[in-house]
Amino acid sequence: MAELDATRLAAWRAFLRTHAVVTAELSRELEEARGLPLVQYDVLVQLDEAEGGRLRMQQLAARVLFSRSGLTRLVDRMTAEGLVRRERCEDDRRGTYAVLTPAGRRRLREAAGIHLRGVDAHFARHLSGRDVRALRAAFAAVLAAEDGGD
Amino acid sequence: MAELDATRLAAWRAFLRTHAVVTAELSRELEEARGLPLVQYDVLVQLDEAEGGRLRMQQLAARVLFSRSGLTRLVDRMTAEGLVRRERCEDDRRGTYAVLTPAGRRRLREAAGIHLRGVDAHFARHLSGRDVRALRAAFAAVLAAEDGGD
Repeated sequence: MAELDATRLAAWRAFLRTHAVVTAELSRELEEARGLPLVQYDVLVQLDEAEGGRLRMQQLAARVLFSRSGLTRLVDRMTAEGLVRRERCEDDRRGTYAVLTPAGRRRLREAAGIHLRGVDAHFARHLSGRDVRALRAAFAAVLAAEDGGD
Repeated sequence: MAELDATRLAAWRAFLRTHAVVTAELSRELEEARGLPLVQYDVLVQLDEAEGGRLRMQQLAARVLFSRSGLTRLVDRMTAEGLVRRERCEDDRRGTYAVLTPAGRRRLREAAGIHLRGVDAHFARHLSGRDVRALRAAFAAVLAAEDGGD
């Protein structure tokens, strides 16, 4: 086991704290302005970027950035609200797709401006070009080691 | 509104993905090896580092790094398991403290090795000294702008 030195542990804790503080703020803003939870925004983005606006539930689970554990209930709620619909996979009886509905796409478009402005205000604008390059290199190294990443 | 350029947005998304991937892995390991959810580990750490092993619920909410929204239920569960106890604030009738119990402290000690080894394996060891300095500077800038941070 390599030693986890104090500097690296401090970087890890700052990483977690930054995530907690910034996502709490983005979440609050999006709820206040659009009544949309950040976890739902995340699902809408992942589906919107997928081919045909659809993903198998397992694929969606691998792509969402928040609340992986509560995904089934979350998609149930979004289905009840008409933002997503479920569809059986024709070639796999056990599988289900989550599919973005037109209402879901509209909801995403309405929310995107607020959200991206928040990402800029609470995160991006505080970073120099050098910070941005350094972060991307560091995260790429971590994600590469975790095999997946994108 | 400043423009959120593509490079900064990519850094933001890599930040979220790294957080999702690494915390999912740490959470899985800690549950498997010690039966302790990462969100509970987080509460135990925050209490352990507080004076007297106690924090008002509001203070605890500001310090935890995961699940701020579900904190009350989480502390209820941990109280039922004997890891935490609640105590009325004597000088404030509305306030409640969460207090680390000896069992909670023991649970934390048992879990810390696994967790810190995981932080090293999944995050810290993939970062050069330069990466670590760059991350700390970038997160410090973001946290300073969000007023709080520590």
